[in-house]
Amino acid sequence: MQAAHRATQVMERIQTLASFSAMPNGILRAYLTEEHRQAHQQLAQWMTQAGLEIWQDEVGNQWGRKVSAHPEMPTLIIGSHSDTVANAGGYDGPLGILLAIEALDALKGVDLPFHVDVVAFADEEGTRFQTTLLGSSPVAGMWNPALLDRKDKDGVTIGEAMKRFGLDPDKVVDAARKPEETLAYLEVHIEQGPLLESLDLPVGVVTAIAGAKRFLIDVSGVAGHAGTVPLPLRHDALCGTAEMIACIEAFATEHEIVATVGKCEVRSAAVNVIPGQVQFSLDIRSQSQDKLDYCAPLLMTQLAAIADKRGLTITHEQIYQAQAVPCSDRLQQVWADVVESATGKDVCYLASGAGHDAMVMANIAEMGMLFVRCEKGISHNPRENVETQDVAVALDCLINMIRSLSPSRAGTD
Amino acid sequence: MQAAHRATQVMERIQTLASFSAMPNGILRAYLTEEHRQAHQQLAQWMTQAGLEIWQDEVGNQWGRKVSAHPEMPTLIIGSHSDTVANAGGYDGPLGILLAIEALDALKGVDLPFHVDVVAFADEEGTRFQTTLLGSSPVAGMWNPALLDRKDKDGVTIGEAMKRFGLDPDKVVDAARKPEETLAYLEVHIEQGPLLESLDLPVGVVTAIAGAKRFLIDVSGVAGHAGTVPLPLRHDALCGTAEMIACIEAFATEHEIVATVGKCEVRSAAVNVIPGQVQFSLDIRSQSQDKLDYCAPLLMTQLAAIADKRGLTITHEQIYQAQAVPCSDRLQQVWADVVESATGKDVCYLASGAGHDAMVMANIAEMGMLFVRCEKGISHNPRENVETQDVAVALDCLINMIRSLSPSRAGTD
Repeated sequence: MQAAHRATQVMERIQTLASFSAMPNGILRAYLTEEHRQAHQQLAQWMTQAGLEIWQDEVGNQWGRKVSAHPEMPTLIIGSHSDTVANAGGYDGPLGILLAIEALDALKGVDLPFHVDVVAFADEEGTRFQTTLLGSSPVAGMWNPALLDRKDKDGVTIGEAMKRFGLDPDKVVDAARKPEETLAYLEVHIEQGPLLESLDLPVGVVTAIAGAKRFLIDVSGVAGHAGTVPLPLRHDALCGTAEMIACIEAFATEHEIVATVGKCEVRSAAVNVIPGQVQFSLDIRSQSQDKLDYCAPLLMTQLAAIADKRGLTITHEQIYQAQAVPCSDRLQQVWADVVESATGKDVCYLASGAGHDAMVMANIAEMGMLFVRCEKGISHNPRENVETQDVAVALDCLINMIRSLSPSRAGTD
Repeated sequence: MQAAHRATQVMERIQTLASFSAMPNGILRAYLTEEHRQAHQQLAQWMTQAGLEIWQDEVGNQWGRKVSAHPEMPTLIIGSHSDTVANAGGYDGPLGILLAIEALDALKGVDLPFHVDVVAFADEEGTRFQTTLLGSSPVAGMWNPALLDRKDKDGVTIGEAMKRFGLDPDKVVDAARKPEETLAYLEVHIEQGPLLESLDLPVGVVTAIAGAKRFLIDVSGVAGHAGTVPLPLRHDALCGTAEMIACIEAFATEHEIVATVGKCEVRSAAVNVIPGQVQFSLDIRSQSQDKLDYCAPLLMTQLAAIADKRGLTITHEQIYQAQAVPCSDRLQQVWADVVESATGKDVCYLASGAGHDAMVMANIAEMGMLFVRCEKGISHNPRENVETQDVAVALDCLINMIRSLSPSRAGTD
């Protein structure tokens, strides 16, 4: 089959998977549901057609293996997730699984010096149980049994849902893969951002999954009558916050981190009252954990100086933290080689601002990711869109990536 | 009685009036209520003790007249309001009435070349019927009979409430005073702002009651994932709003107007979502209507330029407008003379950012106001506070103001 036909087939399969949904006019596929089962049955069928040996693991992930003629060799795992958010697009997750199946179908008959496993992780988004990466964490040896008691909105625990699905909650730990038997983990995923589109590139090499810190920041000034307090006598918490947001924006640009003030609430707000209290959120991200750890307190110092200058008080509380996870330098280089050869253009290296299964899989193996351009960077939305020709490029890259990997390189960087 | 004793008496009477309240542990005195009746009965008694002829007008305002030996002469009206907001302080309104009664008590036996009326306006705050200046507007010939159908929170109309109070709604127009028979209108009021306190001055001469324009401003950008959209590709509505608020603050300082952004709401706000939509309010005030009319569109142009630069769209809607009302130049000069003589200090001229009965009384007569320092500029709050010694200064000024006025000056500027 030609590359263009393979890309078209991937796009058709995206549509087929989209039909396994709990929403009548949109996509919603959550962990341990009937749609999960149906989607994985369909994936298993396509895996079989690609010549793979199939099985479902103890977590409910669907696997397919291209067995090497060299049984003692380690396994390359390629995967992504099959679950979705509510009212999702069709590409976030499934594209990576279908590309892997298609790549192995294209390599049918080619003997590789390692096994290749395709995996459809059954939960990455955390839609049903409000905790993410339930599919890949046990595979990466990071299972927390306390999660079995976590409930969905109907009060069903993960443990109960597993049993109803036919899984044994006590055996989840058995889903763990051994680091010494794992060559690497690869994942192709839509970018979920607009950078590749802005650079007119179909794919890009991921450098790291960014770490994040989130804060709630309270600014207190003095409320007052909007008509009777002259400007020089004010301690306006919102004017102070505005200067802080401008500072955050400039700081992020200067230090090359990503910063977002997503929430900003004036307490007891009224048109004719000088704001006395404002709370805003701050989300900062960087692919470098060192930079994140350095920037967070430095930025807080600058915000405090603004507060001080204006006679305001400021307090902050850290509400979230995620460590940055770098991608393997070696795998980035191989991706770059295959991308350059496929596109004939300079390679774009970019960090992932969102989390992925690759984050936890890095716990047991070298990890490398390839991003595919998506329209306007939109994801988690029915308007999520990817072009067939970009899928063809991504498939070409993945096939060459698999061909380029040598088992002897494993663990050398 | 000495000035200090008179000031103490005013402070005691403030406390007495505070007891006529619909709130058990705070002050709430609304129009056409039992507390209104009780407070006005008490005021009438004090007016009588000051030698004044008393009557209630068709709106429910309480009057007291110091009759001149020259019956053909016009009348100086001195007043303020007796109603309050909910959980009010004791000085906002009553202070001006009690100082006028006290001044006329001090002038008992002094024959003035004009009549002097003290008036307690029964509604300025609009607490009960959500429309302000119900007491003074009919007196100033600005009565709108359509208001009779306006309801309080219990569904009682102003017309019904008037009847229950013993007033005839059809006769409200008869409360109007004739401009040709009115010498001037004077009002002493707490500043409700921190300027006099910051200058260490007990009183100040009001130059005008500021005009105001209020707007709701919508800023639209593009929402996005806080982790995946690089800063240069963002159209962050909140970052744009922050720059606009900074611009508003700088503009107000440069153009010597008062500007307040009291509300600021991020639509569909989340910690990890780039704000796509923000709405904020803008309140701008100036004692010069010309300046206000000039500044409003100029400022909007500057905000639009910020939006344009950032790839945002901006729309605005004007939601309120109040014309600036200048105080009489002549009366400002007389106030300044008596204030300088009472304090021995340079006179502070200041605009009123809040509305007052004087605003509408300017429709029928020259109008002049004196502001009294209040602690930290706090009003509409139980912590509203005024010092007795400042009350003594204000009383001294008011007595000298009345003595200084000449009926021949009326209408000459």
